[in-house]
Amino acid sequence: MRRVLTTGILFTDHYQLTMAQLYFRSGLGERPARFEHSFRAYPDYGTHQAGYSIAAGLAPFVDWMLQSRFDASVADALRSLRSGSGGAIFEDDFLEWMQEIGGFGDVSLWAVPEGRVVHRNTPIAIVEAPLVMAQLLESSLLNHLNYATLIATKASRVVEAAHGGSVLEFGLRRAHGFGGIGASRSALIGGAEFSSNVGISHELGIPSKGTHGHSMVQVFMAIAGGELEAFRAYAEVYPDDCLLLVDTINTLESGVPNAIRVFEELKSRGHRPVGIRLDSGDLAHLAVRSAALLNAAGFADTSIVLSSQLDELTIWQIRNQVVEEAPNYGLDVDQMLARLVYGVGSRMATSDGDPSFDGVYKAVAVKDGAGSWQPAIKISDSPDKLALPGVKSLWRVYDERGIATADVISLVGEDLTRRPLEILHPTRPGVGRSLEGSQVSAVEALLEPVVTEGKVVARLGDISEARSRRVADLARLDTGVRRLVNPHTYHVSVTRPLLELKQTLIQAHRTG
Amino acid sequence: MRRVLTTGILFTDHYQLTMAQLYFRSGLGERPARFEHSFRAYPDYGTHQAGYSIAAGLAPFVDWMLQSRFDASVADALRSLRSGSGGAIFEDDFLEWMQEIGGFGDVSLWAVPEGRVVHRNTPIAIVEAPLVMAQLLESSLLNHLNYATLIATKASRVVEAAHGGSVLEFGLRRAHGFGGIGASRSALIGGAEFSSNVGISHELGIPSKGTHGHSMVQVFMAIAGGELEAFRAYAEVYPDDCLLLVDTINTLESGVPNAIRVFEELKSRGHRPVGIRLDSGDLAHLAVRSAALLNAAGFADTSIVLSSQLDELTIWQIRNQVVEEAPNYGLDVDQMLARLVYGVGSRMATSDGDPSFDGVYKAVAVKDGAGSWQPAIKISDSPDKLALPGVKSLWRVYDERGIATADVISLVGEDLTRRPLEILHPTRPGVGRSLEGSQVSAVEALLEPVVTEGKVVARLGDISEARSRRVADLARLDTGVRRLVNPHTYHVSVTRPLLELKQTLIQAHRTG
Repeated sequence: MRRVLTTGILFTDHYQLTMAQLYFRSGLGERPARFEHSFRAYPDYGTHQAGYSIAAGLAPFVDWMLQSRFDASVADALRSLRSGSGGAIFEDDFLEWMQEIGGFGDVSLWAVPEGRVVHRNTPIAIVEAPLVMAQLLESSLLNHLNYATLIATKASRVVEAAHGGSVLEFGLRRAHGFGGIGASRSALIGGAEFSSNVGISHELGIPSKGTHGHSMVQVFMAIAGGELEAFRAYAEVYPDDCLLLVDTINTLESGVPNAIRVFEELKSRGHRPVGIRLDSGDLAHLAVRSAALLNAAGFADTSIVLSSQLDELTIWQIRNQVVEEAPNYGLDVDQMLARLVYGVGSRMATSDGDPSFDGVYKAVAVKDGAGSWQPAIKISDSPDKLALPGVKSLWRVYDERGIATADVISLVGEDLTRRPLEILHPTRPGVGRSLEGSQVSAVEALLEPVVTEGKVVARLGDISEARSRRVADLARLDTGVRRLVNPHTYHVSVTRPLLELKQTLIQAHRTG
Repeated sequence: MRRVLTTGILFTDHYQLTMAQLYFRSGLGERPARFEHSFRAYPDYGTHQAGYSIAAGLAPFVDWMLQSRFDASVADALRSLRSGSGGAIFEDDFLEWMQEIGGFGDVSLWAVPEGRVVHRNTPIAIVEAPLVMAQLLESSLLNHLNYATLIATKASRVVEAAHGGSVLEFGLRRAHGFGGIGASRSALIGGAEFSSNVGISHELGIPSKGTHGHSMVQVFMAIAGGELEAFRAYAEVYPDDCLLLVDTINTLESGVPNAIRVFEELKSRGHRPVGIRLDSGDLAHLAVRSAALLNAAGFADTSIVLSSQLDELTIWQIRNQVVEEAPNYGLDVDQMLARLVYGVGSRMATSDGDPSFDGVYKAVAVKDGAGSWQPAIKISDSPDKLALPGVKSLWRVYDERGIATADVISLVGEDLTRRPLEILHPTRPGVGRSLEGSQVSAVEALLEPVVTEGKVVARLGDISEARSRRVADLARLDTGVRRLVNPHTYHVSVTRPLLELKQTLIQAHRTG
């Protein structure tokens, strides 16, 4: 009961409910309304910046939406809230009406599928529903999609920095509560190969991974011998998964020599040791030194897992340092880099440097009494932040090389097959491009129908499909946009009809 | 079923289970073991730093622990995991043994209560349990306590920056998934007066708060008049809770004048308007200008709620700017500051600047075959990071003014009533203090029994008690330690017997 109240339909902000009651009182509650989810800026981690984001969170959000009910227990909870006068804030007729609606069964949702590259100031999810329910959806939609997209984006960067080296997600212990479940899921979408998080990995059908921590070695040191005995015990139980954490006492003087001894024993029994993990100290230097010891003992094919405060920048620096140091120890640089595996924890699971995603959910159109869509706008913002009004579509235009050259926002129903295709800067007057047929290899609609009046109409939640989408989209994204530091700005454009609608509305409200 | 698997006992890292099976195979699984939760550094937000932390997360963690079961569905999930050889990683006898244990019914837990000030490198929670279960608890304990303590700490700083101004927690839309529930709860412990999060506020017995967003005004602009009509509709439905968001069109030219018009209508009907909210632009400047307009219209007693990217530093800057600007508009500075309310969202709910708490969970002692505690240690760390071994207690020493002067870690059973009380620096040899009776007003044990062999023995989860503890502790904390930027370092000391145990162990393992 308690968990249902905190994670169900009341996983929302109070003002969504006060607005819902106001719409009900004003006779607007059932008016069809359209809201859009977009984000205003890519994550900026301070010393480095994202030039793209990876959409994520859709399947868990849809699960939440279709399972959440406005039932009697919810009404009871709300009935207890008092207004400044001491009376009930939420009155019985409203609460009864909400219980009749019952949930999000009238919602339709379009979205860019999980795993796809998405860009700022474009509608990446669109909700159409009776006003009261479209409004009530805001907090949870933003919570689910913002966070997941934030972490998938971070993971994608970490994976790019690893240049083909496997990335393991280890962040549960410092993730934000049960948000850790979404962190693991989003990291897997963003390209992490495996996660240590057992429950969500099982749910997604991807095996969880992990070996042992310092505590195991400490326990053996305290009551059952020492590091060597701990390693032997581990090798005994897991002869074909023997990856040993070597830094509990001293990496080069104790951990690696003990690991090699145990690897030799394993080898003599016909097993192939997996490798070692380094979790403290100068990881690049210790990796090179450990590799030299392992190679000398005939274990050149073992992995070296690195962990401890890794993110895209530290991985980049570690790889650079390895390239410099490896030759000093007679190691082949490529082979050295190829054996590295990255265990990435806190910094990926919390998007260190920029832990919140700047996503918003804005009303863009409401139907008037005659059933016509009326565009909605908020005009106090600076031009850059100003959301685009109206009932819109989102497209991706690929150039003659097949590389994405712009995301284009149009009004619904516009014809984007016409050539030349005129695309305009959304805020700088007169700036735009006119693309000839020879310059455009494809124009792709990015938004897919996900839920139609409460029914799921898309294939949702397949992680391997989401991962494939990311790989395919990155291959079609300019390398400058993918740069870890100070990336090139990707073009987001609008069509002329949309720009004119926006300008007309601003004019009308400023003069009206 | 699915949710149970992701949020139950498998809300853990894979290596806890591989270690558990290894302890089982090695015959160590039921050995009593002691693990400690401590943190190595206060949050460092880059431009500002915490000098203390606020403990939080205990009640939700204990709930999780006592509800989590190792049942057949868990065993089935684990049975599907394959080793490198293709066989099962987790074997049937281990899975059956775990199902017999069933859960955390043998765990005992001591902790510093929620809401209390806590310091780095001290044991703030201690687990004693059969080794296998003490180990298995790690991931979830750290997840629950790290995150909650991080956010309670951030909230406490925000509340201190507000200098008595009310702080409202608004972070759900950008919090990390269902971690947003813990964010709201922790912010309330840290001193936020109310939260917008409806579900958790209801569960905690604190009313949720909120009014309306831009979308409401936009909807009226699109199909039912404009901002004035939106405000009128709001005042009609909520005449005694009328707080209006005034920045949808233009704060000073449209929002505030329209709000004043509606306030006058309310007043004439015998209601007292509550105030306005500003969510964009130069908040300090707009607050002063809005206050001047409100005062001129006879609404000097209304609140001005500020929101948009607030944290402790921005609140500090806003208050400074208000102090400078208020006199230019004929406003009384104290009255002006007193009417400000702070709606704090993303930056508090994600601990912007430092989104992960550096908490660790370390084995400190295990019983040997004869039933004696054997201290455990990890010695590869630098001296500052080195965890203290053994079965320990934690104390707070208050000076003659009643101000906390040091947290002291001792071995269990030591007599801290002796005077002079010798307390030593944990890592710098020869550095310490000898406190005479006249210099010590009290020595307080900080750890309280929370769970004894699976039974809750403490009063848990009362938010108002936790809030009172924070207020009382801050009143006894040096103001220099509470400073927002570059705070004074609080002393954490150890007793001589503990220091000697540590040195003996290091010696033994280095020479052994």
